[in-house]
Formats: sequence, C-alpha cells, structure tokens
Amino acid sequence: MKLSKRIENVHYSAVRSLSPYADRAVKAGKKIYHLNIGAPDVPVPDEYYETFENLERGPLPYAPSAGMPELREATSKYYKNRNINFEPEDIYITMGASEALMFTFQTIADDGDTVLTTNPFYTNYSTIFEQLDIEISAFPTDPDKGFAIPEEDAIENCVLDNTVAILLSNPTNPTGALYSREEIERIVNVAKRHNLYIVADEVYREFIYDDNDYTSFGEIDGIEENLILIDSISKRFGACGARVGSVASKNKEFLDGINKLCNCRLAAPTIEQLAASKLYGIDKDYFETVNKEYQRRRDVIYEELIAIPGVTVKKPKGAFYVMPKLPVDDTEKFAKWILEEFDVDGETVMFAPASGFFKDAEDGKQMVRIAFVLNEDAIRRSMKILRLGLEAYNSL
Amino acid sequence: MKLSKRIENVHYSAVRSLSPYADRAVKAGKKIYHLNIGAPDVPVPDEYYETFENLERGPLPYAPSAGMPELREATSKYYKNRNINFEPEDIYITMGASEALMFTFQTIADDGDTVLTTNPFYTNYSTIFEQLDIEISAFPTDPDKGFAIPEEDAIENCVLDNTVAILLSNPTNPTGALYSREEIERIVNVAKRHNLYIVADEVYREFIYDDNDYTSFGEIDGIEENLILIDSISKRFGACGARVGSVASKNKEFLDGINKLCNCRLAAPTIEQLAASKLYGIDKDYFETVNKEYQRRRDVIYEELIAIPGVTVKKPKGAFYVMPKLPVDDTEKFAKWILEEFDVDGETVMFAPASGFFKDAEDGKQMVRIAFVLNEDAIRRSMKILRLGLEAYNSL
Ligand SMILES: Cc1ncc(COP(=O)(O)O)c(C=O)c1O
Ligand SMILES: Cc1ncc(COP(=O)(O)O)c(C=O)c1O
Repeated sequence: MKLSKRIENVHYSAVRSLSPYADRAVKAGKKIYHLNIGAPDVPVPDEYYETFENLERGPLPYAPSAGMPELREATSKYYKNRNINFEPEDIYITMGASEALMFTFQTIADDGDTVLTTNPFYTNYSTIFEQLDIEISAFPTDPDKGFAIPEEDAIENCVLDNTVAILLSNPTNPTGALYSREEIERIVNVAKRHNLYIVADEVYREFIYDDNDYTSFGEIDGIEENLILIDSISKRFGACGARVGSVASKNKEFLDGINKLCNCRLAAPTIEQLAASKLYGIDKDYFETVNKEYQRRRDVIYEELIAIPGVTVKKPKGAFYVMPKLPVDDTEKFAKWILEEFDVDGETVMFAPASGFFKDAEDGKQMVRIAFVLNEDAIRRSMKILRLGLEAYNSL
Repeated sequence: MKLSKRIENVHYSAVRSLSPYADRAVKAGKKIYHLNIGAPDVPVPDEYYETFENLERGPLPYAPSAGMPELREATSKYYKNRNINFEPEDIYITMGASEALMFTFQTIADDGDTVLTTNPFYTNYSTIFEQLDIEISAFPTDPDKGFAIPEEDAIENCVLDNTVAILLSNPTNPTGALYSREEIERIVNVAKRHNLYIVADEVYREFIYDDNDYTSFGEIDGIEENLILIDSISKRFGACGARVGSVASKNKEFLDGINKLCNCRLAAPTIEQLAASKLYGIDKDYFETVNKEYQRRRDVIYEELIAIPGVTVKKPKGAFYVMPKLPVDDTEKFAKWILEEFDVDGETVMFAPASGFFKDAEDGKQMVRIAFVLNEDAIRRSMKILRLGLEAYNSL
C-alpha cells in the first residue's frame, strides 16, 4: 500500500532512537536517570485538580473552537499583568504549544517557504516543518557566548527571498539561553526590515534565574502585525499532560486563519480548559517557589558539569536545559554506550544527543542536551555517573 | 503580511455562515432550537466523572505519544467484544476522530491525490482535504433509496488513477444511512481490486435502530492491509468535549506513519484518556437505553417530517441525523430567513443547509441536515416551527 511522500519526509527525534537502548537497560535491571525529557517533576497546583473534583456531571459538549471564554479571559489577564496587551479575542486556545505552532505555520507558510530560527533549536520545530514541507534557515548562536543572539548582520545574512518568519524560544529549549532586551530588538529590527512574522515561543517564560529581567516580545511596540505569541501550561504549571496551549496575535488576518484550523478540529478538551483557567489565576508566589527549586538544580548541575574534565559549558539563565560539550567525538554513540554498556551500582543516565537540535547534525555531535528536571540528589548522582562514564569510555 | 495559499484553500463550514443570523436572532430575544449540531444531549456515564474525582494530585507528565496503555487495552477489549480483532498495539489514541482522520490522510495521501467518498459526506472531511490539498471524488447515494451504497460499477466509475482510499462513515453523518453487509462488501471489492485503503469512520457504531444488524469493516476478512478504522468517544458516550478518539489498523507501515505524527504533537491529554478507558468498560445496557431514546426521537422526527406538505424523506436507520428534501429552492436562504424573519411565539429553528455536505453544492440545495439531539417535546415543537415557516416562506 502506498504511503505519502509527506510522511516519509517526517523523522523520529534523535532521542527516540535511544529508546530501544533504554528499554534494554531497564530489562537488564538498570535504573535510568532521565535527563532526556523536559517534563517538570513539580506537582500541578491544587487549583487544577479542584476543577476536576468539583465538576457537575452531565453531557459534555464541544467547547467553542476558539477556546473556552473563561480560559481566553484568564490568559488575557495573565498577559496584561506582564505588560502584554492581548484581549481575550486575540487569543486562541490550542492543544498544547505543539498545536499552536502547527496551526501557525500552516497559516503563514507554504511548501518550500523558509523559516529562520536559531541554531540549535527545539527539535520538534523541524518535525512540524517536515510535515509542511517548510525549509529551515538558521543563524548560529555561539556556545561560548551562552548561545546568545548574534549581531543583526549575522541574522540578516540568513534571511532568504522566501523567508516568512523568524521563530525562536525564549528562554530557550535546548540551550537554557535567555535573551536580553537588546538581543530581542535585533530580531525585531530584522523582522520589520524584511516584513517577517516573529513567532515567539515563550513557554518557559516563568523560568528565569538570578533575578534576570525578562523581556517578552509581547512588550515590544510596533510589531503588532508581525508578532505571533506561542504559549502553554505544560512547563509553567507542570501540566504537560493537560495539552493546553495558545496562540495570540493582533494580526486579524492571521487569526482568521487560526480560527479556520481551530474549526476543522472542532475543539480542545473542555474540562482541561476549565482547569487551566484556574491555573492562570494563581499568584506569583508559586513561580517564585518553583524557580528557586530549579535555580538550585541549575547551580548544582552547572557546578558538577564544569568539574568534569574536558566538559565545557556556560551557566544557563532560563528554562531547565543545559547544553554542554563533552570530551567525546560523537555523543549519540556515547549516549547509547552509557545506556547499554555502563552503570554505577546498577544505575545509568539518559540524555539527548545534541545533533538532533541542529540544522546540520554535525554541529551538535560533541554536545548533549540535559534537562534538569530531577531533584538535587538525583542530579548529583547522575552527574557522577556521567563523569565515571566519560572516564571509562575514553579509556576504552 | 503574507498568508499561506494552503490556509486560503480552507473554508468555513456552511453551518458557520449561519452563525451571524443565529446571533442576531438571539439578540432579538428569540429562542433557537438547535438542530444543526451533532452533539448528543445525554449525560456522560458516571464512570467518566468518577475518574476525575479520584485523581492523585501531583505532576502531570506527558502520556505516551501513542496513547495511555490502559486506554489502548480498553479499546482493544471493546473491539474484540464486537468481533473486531485489534490488539492494543494496533490502536493509536488521538484527540478525537478529527485528529485520527487528519493523521490518516497525512500518512496515506499526497497533494493532488484523490479520496473517494459518498456523496453527500461529513462536511469536515473536506476541510481536512483542503488543508492537505487532496481532491474528493464522490459516488452518488440516492436520497430515495435512503442514501444506500450503489452498485459496484457506480463506485468503480469514480476511482481515478490517483485515488488512494475510500472513506465513509457508517452509520452516516449526514444522512443517517446504515450500510448492510452486502453494501459493505461492494466497497471492499472495489478497494481490493484497486488496492485502496478503506478508511471506515465508525464513530456512530452504537447508534443503530429497529434492531438492525451492524457490520463493521473490522469484521471483514482479507482487508487487513487496507483497513483503517476511525473511532471516537464523542458520540458514543456523549463526550464530545473530551477529545478522545483512535485510529486502528493491522497495516504496520501505516501505523508507523501514525506513530510519527503522534510523536510530533507529543501526546493526547492524560486524564481524559484515563477517564475514557473507564467508559470503554461499561456494559451494553447503557447503549440500549441511549438507543431507545434516540430511536424514539427518530420516530417522532420522521413522523413529523412526512406530515409536512412537500417534504420527502426516508426513515434514517442509524446515527442521529436525517436529511429531508424541503419544498424550497435554496435551503441556505430559507435557513437564514427562518432565523432572521420568522418565529412562532418567539421561537425558531436552526438546521444545516445540505449543500455543504455535497461535493457540488448544487446537489444539496433543496435538502437540509437535521440532528435529532433534542428531546421529544423539543423535536415536535421545532418541527411545528419548520412546518409553519415553510408555509409562510412559500406564500411570500
Ligand atoms: C520550546 C518548546 N516549545 C513548545 C513545546 C511543546 O509544548 P506543549 O506541551 O505545550 O505542546 C516544548 C516542549 O518541550 C518546548 O520545549
Ligand atoms: C462522521 C464523523 N466523523 C468524525 C467526527 C469527529 O468527531 P470527534 O469529536 O471525535 O473529533 C464527527 C463529528 O461530528 C462525525 O460526525
């Protein structure tokens, strides 16, 4: 039977190619520390669960395609509290940021168009582009500068005739980079000069360390027609399994396209949306507590990493990722080896080879992406395993 | 700013074009009987809500992309109880049948390929095809024969060189047709002869009236490689707002494509899947009770419809739709008029003009689709409004 060319175009993520190795490690009785997935381990706030516990039983109709009014309202309030001026009707609720991104690029890009992003970038951007036959253009961000946004001309060099948008996450998956207002403005200038959309993926907005300032693209004036803001409760409230996100814009034509796509899939889950609307109401203390915890973890993992001979890394400033360079030729081989051949007292570690996050896999061959979503002890333990693993691997 | 050609290709449904008329009617203080949406009004069984009341609080991780094991298991059991032999690993959980259909056609059809379906067909099939640039070929089903599947050569005449699949719903949205085993076999024969996928959308499987037999495509031998079975809890358990569906197949290459797409969007909602798994365990009494209620409504609406002068209709055998021909030239105009200009004691009705369900809108111009998802009294009342409305309209 025929399969479509478009599906043959879509690849599994690099992390997934490790799954059989992880499965075998588990079968062999090993315990794996999972540093490979960006799923927070903090509990979802009680407000979320209370919605489920207090439901009125009855028929469960489709939610409005654009989203439950309660949630659009709550998201708008949350934005306004952060100087981001979106009205409820500017916000469309989606099934996670994943759907928001998919709908966005369906709306703004045709087959063969190019989207400009950072190199490295969140790996699922490319699976979306593979589905839609969109090409990636990527400007380099330098590991030695903490993967900062480069000067304007380095960005501009990568704008092609058929480039329709600049896409980036801030703070960043996979590097933990946090962009300053000045860096943001470089993006804005290029986008305005070339009439590009800015697709700002701010799902890690609340994970900012060292009391750094955070500038949302939503705070910048004069890009109302360009800006598409992507968001999600997955990371913010530890609610990855809820599948609630959103896309917001002031560009009416763009929103009309999103609205059509929302109509096509009928609706997002009703109850999850109601629960999410309660989450948006919780106060800032929550984020402070969570951030303190993640900042401690970030400190621990950084300290442990720089103590490993041959590892180079800058301290990440946001999100919960770090992308160190390891003293090996090919981190994918090493990642498989450490799962399959190595353990310390029956324990080993799993992380994501960085090649899957780069436009050209070669560029990431010596790096890995580590998600610090484990508690302090587990991080120390897994970094010890990494250190001993590197020693053993390099003396083979 | 540029919008994509692909989004310009996507149209709003015909029903949606009535929304402003409905909004104005409501503003004018009218009550509307909604016969235009296929959302059941029966309560979701308690098992669903009990899951929510007994949740353990904590972090909420992503579900496995392919679906929660509990739900794949429960769906498999449900199928096996109906002589449909799908193992849990043959079943991928999706966000409603809508996502299942989207993923299916992404996997099997390229731009410009053709899918063969019944004329009329479920209107959202075409919004999926518009997104994917797939062409529709449609074989006629005759209103005077209850929209039955025609003889094999009439189907075969519509198979083109680039046809990849036959898609149909059984029982059928929008007509309420129920296909006999013999009709099913006509489809099977054509599909086998031309090596086509059969995409069987059986979301209304449990809505069968008059003790008719139901034949699922899943019961037919020898089409293991061809068959793709689409399902959903939306209609079956009155849980449209849950957004839980599935796609099942024995074709491993096809499933590998689905798996990739499931990976790209990370996961379906965790808690909704757990709740859905409990629904699949409930016993047959539930369906019998629900069916009795819908059969009574079907009887009432049929009786009322044939009593209206100039209306022609066959009695639907399944689902909760009926597609009568009305004594007007253009049901879209009439639908707008009855919302805007007509009422009986402040009440009016809304239904879906049938043109949106036909490949060629002209073919449906005199028909409407009515969803009988209201109680008996409301059905009688709304049919009275329809009758008086027709009289008034035709004497203008
Ligand atoms: C940068 C970024 N954007 C989007 C997503 C998708 O999140 P969601 O769970 O809301 O689909 C992720 C998930 O890891 C992410 O890291
Ligand atoms: C025939 C048919 N298939 C699929 C669907 C989509 O259902 P879901 O709510 O599972 O996405 C519908 C909804 O009306 C339908 O009538």
